[in-house]
Amino acid sequence: MRPQRIQIVEVGPRDGLQNEPLSTLSDRITLVNALAGTGLSHIEAASFVSPKWVPKMADADKLFASIDRQAGVIYSALTPNIKGFEAALAAGVDQVAVFASASESFSQKNINCSIIESIERFEPVLAAARQHNIRVRGYVSCTLGCPYEGAIAPARVAEVAQVLFEAGCYEVSLGDTIGTGTPDQAAAMVEAVAAQVPISALALHFHDTYGQALANVAACLELGVSTIDSSVAGLGGCPYATGASGNLATEDLVYMLNGLGLSHGVDLTKLVAVGNDISQRLGRKNGSKVGQALRKKTS
Amino acid sequence: MRPQRIQIVEVGPRDGLQNEPLSTLSDRITLVNALAGTGLSHIEAASFVSPKWVPKMADADKLFASIDRQAGVIYSALTPNIKGFEAALAAGVDQVAVFASASESFSQKNINCSIIESIERFEPVLAAARQHNIRVRGYVSCTLGCPYEGAIAPARVAEVAQVLFEAGCYEVSLGDTIGTGTPDQAAAMVEAVAAQVPISALALHFHDTYGQALANVAACLELGVSTIDSSVAGLGGCPYATGASGNLATEDLVYMLNGLGLSHGVDLTKLVAVGNDISQRLGRKNGSKVGQALRKKTS
Repeated sequence: MRPQRIQIVEVGPRDGLQNEPLSTLSDRITLVNALAGTGLSHIEAASFVSPKWVPKMADADKLFASIDRQAGVIYSALTPNIKGFEAALAAGVDQVAVFASASESFSQKNINCSIIESIERFEPVLAAARQHNIRVRGYVSCTLGCPYEGAIAPARVAEVAQVLFEAGCYEVSLGDTIGTGTPDQAAAMVEAVAAQVPISALALHFHDTYGQALANVAACLELGVSTIDSSVAGLGGCPYATGASGNLATEDLVYMLNGLGLSHGVDLTKLVAVGNDISQRLGRKNGSKVGQALRKKTS
Repeated sequence: MRPQRIQIVEVGPRDGLQNEPLSTLSDRITLVNALAGTGLSHIEAASFVSPKWVPKMADADKLFASIDRQAGVIYSALTPNIKGFEAALAAGVDQVAVFASASESFSQKNINCSIIESIERFEPVLAAARQHNIRVRGYVSCTLGCPYEGAIAPARVAEVAQVLFEAGCYEVSLGDTIGTGTPDQAAAMVEAVAAQVPISALALHFHDTYGQALANVAACLELGVSTIDSSVAGLGGCPYATGASGNLATEDLVYMLNGLGLSHGVDLTKLVAVGNDISQRLGRKNGSKVGQALRKKTS
C-alpha cells in the first residue's frame, strides 16, 4: 500500500513564516527561489490576505512578481476569500488553497464563523477558480485534536473533508494543527477520511509540537497517502504552546523518505543549506534535526 | 505482535550526562531520585570507569551511596571492566552493563581493540556477575551505521548480539549510535537480530540525531520489541555532530506510548517537570519536544 513516489508540499514560506518573526520581502523571495532550486515541485509561497490581519504575509503580489518561476514548480497561495483569490489570480499564482476546520470551536475562534459558514464563504473562490482553471487545495485543521475541544472524531474530519472534496478541492490536506496526534490515531483518522475521499486526493499536514509528526507520517504512508506538507527548517511555531515546535521539518521528512527508498525529487544537501540560511536570517535555531546534524558536520 | 507493556530504560543520568557539560554530583543524585519518582523502573544511574577517562561519571560510588533507593526500581551502571564491576558491586548496584560495537572500526577507535577482544575483556565481568547473581545488560553500538564505516550489515549486528546473549547478557540493547537509521532499516536490523536472540531479550537504543528515533521505535514495536532506552529531556549530544541531538527523549517516547495505549508505568507530567529541571540546571534547551510544549503551556 505504501506509495513509491511522494509529493512534498513545501509550506515554509507561508505556514512557516506566518508564525515566525517578521521577514523582509526580500528574504521571503530569496527563500522561495532557493526552495525551487532544491527540486521541490510545490511551494506554498504566500497568502493573499489583508496585511491588517496578517502583516507577515503582506505584499504577496510583489512576491509573486519578483520570484523566478521555475518550470515544473507549482507556486501556490492561500486565498481565504474572493478578494484574495482575485489578487492571487492577478499575481499569476498556479494554485490556491482554502481553509476549514474539523472543530466547530476552532472555526468560531479562529475565523469567527461555523464550519459550514466557512465553507459557504469560500464557495465563490471555488467557482471563480473553476472558471479560471485554477486548482484549489482544501485544508482541514484540527484533524487530530483541537486546542479548545480536545479530541475530534475521525468521522467529523471525514465529513468536512468530503464537503471540501465534493465542493471542488482537488486535494484535501489534513492538518494536525496542535501536533497532539500519535501514529494509531493518525492512521485511524486517515482511514476514516479515505472512506469518503480517494486516498490519492489526501495530504498530511502534521505539526511536530510533541515530536510525533514523522512517526505519524510513517504510519500513514502505509495506508497509501502520497502527499505530505512540511516546512523547511521546521519554520513556524505553535501559537498554542509559545516557543514549541511547529511544522514537520522538510529535511527530516526527506531524510526518512530517502531511507525508505521513496522518490520525491528533492536534493537534501541543497535543502539543508536553504534551511540553515533562513534560520540564520531569522536568528533562530534550525528546527530540523537533519539540518542541525548536517550543518555541524560540514562546518 | 505489538507488545502491550513497555519497559523503558532511562539512560539520562549515564549516557545523557556523559555527553553534556559537567554536572555536580548533587545534581546527578537529584536527577536519579527525581526520575525514580516518575514511575521509571530501570535507571542507568552511573558508569564505573576511571575519572581520568570520563570525568563526568566520577564518584559513581558516592552517587550510589547517596540516592534514595526506591523499591521496584532497578538502578544499573555501566562497568566496562572487572575493576569497574567490583566497584559497582561494592556500591550495591542492581544490575550492570557492558558495551560492544557492531563496527570493527568503531571498536578500534573507541576502545582500542577489536570487537572480539572487547567481548573477551568483559568476560571476567560476566563471570563475576554470574557469581554474585547480578544481571548484565549488553550494549551493541553502531547497529544502524558507523561514523567510520558507514553501513553495517544486519547480519553483523546479529552476530555480535548473539555472542553477547550467549555469553550471558540477559538483554541486548541495540544502539543507533549516530542516529542515521530510518524505519525500514531499523526493522530489518531487529528482524535479523531476532533470528538469533529472542525478541524479548532485545532493547532499542536509538539516537535522534536525524529526527528518526521515534519513527524507528514505532516500526520496531510492530515486531514485538518491548524494551526501549531513552533519556529524559533528550540529554546527551552527538559526539559525531557537535551540537546536534543525541538520545531519544523519554518524554516524547512516553507521549507516543500513551497515544498507542501501551502501558509503561511512567507519569508524563512528573517526567516533564524532571526534564525541565535538569535542562535548567544544565543551562540548555530542553531536548524533548513534549517537554518544551508542556512547559510553555503551564508556565
